[in-house]
Amino acid sequence: MPLMKSWVTSANDPTCDFPLNNLPYGVFSNGDHEARCGVAIGDQVVDMAALEAADMITLSDEPVFDLPFWNDVMELGPAAWTTLRERLIALLKDGAAEQAQVAPHLVPLAEVQLHMPLVVSEYTDFYAGRHHATNVGTMFRGAENALPPNWLHIPIGYNGRASTVVVSGTDIRRPVGQTKAPDAEMPSFGPCRRLDIELEMGAIVGSSTQMGQPITVAEADRMIFGYVLLNDWSARDIQAWEYQPLGPFQAKAFATSISPWIVTTAALDPFRTSTPTREQPLLPYLQEPSPMLFDIELAVLIEPEGGESEVIARTNYKEMYYSAAQQLTHHASSGCAMNAGDLLGSGTISGPEKDQRGSLLELSWGGKTPLTLKGGQERSFIEDGDTLTLTGHAEGDGYRVGFGTCSGKILPAVSFP
Amino acid sequence: MPLMKSWVTSANDPTCDFPLNNLPYGVFSNGDHEARCGVAIGDQVVDMAALEAADMITLSDEPVFDLPFWNDVMELGPAAWTTLRERLIALLKDGAAEQAQVAPHLVPLAEVQLHMPLVVSEYTDFYAGRHHATNVGTMFRGAENALPPNWLHIPIGYNGRASTVVVSGTDIRRPVGQTKAPDAEMPSFGPCRRLDIELEMGAIVGSSTQMGQPITVAEADRMIFGYVLLNDWSARDIQAWEYQPLGPFQAKAFATSISPWIVTTAALDPFRTSTPTREQPLLPYLQEPSPMLFDIELAVLIEPEGGESEVIARTNYKEMYYSAAQQLTHHASSGCAMNAGDLLGSGTISGPEKDQRGSLLELSWGGKTPLTLKGGQERSFIEDGDTLTLTGHAEGDGYRVGFGTCSGKILPAVSFP
Repeated sequence: MPLMKSWVTSANDPTCDFPLNNLPYGVFSNGDHEARCGVAIGDQVVDMAALEAADMITLSDEPVFDLPFWNDVMELGPAAWTTLRERLIALLKDGAAEQAQVAPHLVPLAEVQLHMPLVVSEYTDFYAGRHHATNVGTMFRGAENALPPNWLHIPIGYNGRASTVVVSGTDIRRPVGQTKAPDAEMPSFGPCRRLDIELEMGAIVGSSTQMGQPITVAEADRMIFGYVLLNDWSARDIQAWEYQPLGPFQAKAFATSISPWIVTTAALDPFRTSTPTREQPLLPYLQEPSPMLFDIELAVLIEPEGGESEVIARTNYKEMYYSAAQQLTHHASSGCAMNAGDLLGSGTISGPEKDQRGSLLELSWGGKTPLTLKGGQERSFIEDGDTLTLTGHAEGDGYRVGFGTCSGKILPAVSFP
Repeated sequence: MPLMKSWVTSANDPTCDFPLNNLPYGVFSNGDHEARCGVAIGDQVVDMAALEAADMITLSDEPVFDLPFWNDVMELGPAAWTTLRERLIALLKDGAAEQAQVAPHLVPLAEVQLHMPLVVSEYTDFYAGRHHATNVGTMFRGAENALPPNWLHIPIGYNGRASTVVVSGTDIRRPVGQTKAPDAEMPSFGPCRRLDIELEMGAIVGSSTQMGQPITVAEADRMIFGYVLLNDWSARDIQAWEYQPLGPFQAKAFATSISPWIVTTAALDPFRTSTPTREQPLLPYLQEPSPMLFDIELAVLIEPEGGESEVIARTNYKEMYYSAAQQLTHHASSGCAMNAGDLLGSGTISGPEKDQRGSLLELSWGGKTPLTLKGGQERSFIEDGDTLTLTGHAEGDGYRVGFGTCSGKILPAVSFP
């Protein structure tokens, strides 16, 4: 599919994240107006609440856009999602009859504040990248035991904490917690000393299921409203001491950042690709009937306080062993009810090469090979004042479908009462 | 404290779960009326929405009782919780001036349907019972490695699934999932064959904290709105295959049942008791400044389809090694934001004796010593048609503060699409 031209001319630049082919969904505020739904196009935001009030877009008897989240739109279902996208394309395409009526409802992106685009119902994080699982397993259990026995059969996941999912740009306070040095007799309590990122994609579930209602992979794929970039901030020293036997808890609970724009599954459709060849056959309930992963180029940048921003890793979402549709199918398989607004983290996305690793744990190999930044500083883990940023886009023919950025700056730990 | 007498005479029976000393909070419906807040007293429910409409109880400018959850009352804060309890006692005590005005707003418990008493924001389950952790650890890792190294220092917890927390009386569909026999080459997918209960108490967080705001144990204790009985249904065969390395997931996600009445911390105050002597000192942030556990007698009953109900275990909440206040403090310690409506499962409550074990896994020692029921049937794990019930009460001087029951019947698994 080529670039779809828009009368918003900035959207036609081949390096713009938000062409007409994209139309991602966010929540914004500006001036005295409260936060409400918006759609990014070029360097502008379409004020969806204003279009709805002007009867130029109507999805439901109740207003669904003059709200600080997209959950109400999700709950209208996939047919309404398609109607919305088609209507937006008709309004914004080059030569649209309603250009003059729509234009007053555009707000420059540079003048708005972006907010969380949804209310996260529950947050689940997976461990579905093979290179990451192999790297981490090798460091902790040795190369011969790198992958747990269930890994090739189950998209391993655990429930995360929804209350601390925040939008890009939110400062992140260095967490505190229990850690124990291998040679110490007792644990101690204090600021995390091995603070890390995890480069992930987040899939947003848009449709609900009932308790006891399993779903197929095809159904799961149709339930996914869209995707965001996701940084699963991780306290490696807290994690090492706490995670046996019941998994990560406080090491992950302090913060998860997501990018502000939900890129719809419809916008990503041209970039579908299959999950990698299976080393062992999957059980039938997890088999993909058609390509459900996406070719999305990803990067991690670090910017020390007062320093320069630089890329420290590049990888691609297609490196995952399991798609979000497979993860969602497994999630519902026991009878677990899924809800619109559920957020599924893909798991860390690392490629096969050293500079394709999606965490500092892997990039510095547990601190053994620190990165040297352009300014000469070394980094094994994140220092106070560092800003970590994720970027991502799918590359089309003369256009890109971009996610914008997912960014967070680390503030020093607070002292405990 | 002795029995507080009420003009609702059924409440003065020393075996009644709901005397004036208790006043637990639930949500009920009857006839054509929609679900709304109610308070149990004797064999009656006080219609709180009706009392509020009649201006006999006013907590806020907005109505807070004509809603199918207690979350709005929680968010008014501990001072409002005290005001509410004092007002209810004044209205319902023996000789109350307003008896004639209140009496028309009582509805017989036998005529109402009970619903979930709150919207569960997020659900966290702990593993804080020492006898349970020792029993399970002995079965899986041997007696010498029974307790994980962190267990005496951290109230180990993991995030559970809030979407499937249901009220007592809701039928539970047998879950399906991946399991793998030790000698099998590949896993298989099908109905759970080792379905179990976990007898727990659930603590309901009533106050919120900000991200990055740690709390003391004393603050945590004041944030707890009340307690319920909680059955953390568990699929042991699914759990065994999935739980390494990131903890229980689908083995727990299909259902968690709670009792319908939130027994307030205020009602439980006379039954406070300290956590057991520490084998190793706790880090300061987890130390209890005063007794924060409660003396609550608990029982598990099983009733096969068409059979007789019988007690299979009796234990006490005071067996726990960590209190809910300690768990909540640890939960917030990294900077994790807590919200009104968060539900914290205590972990399975087992006593030191064989008939004090809070799960079938422990009672049948992994299936090696099945229970023989009165009707002659054997049980290692739960069969389709079985109804499992938890009961609990604190025993006062001539009265009890009861929780009612937490019950669920197992339906056969559905076939997967």
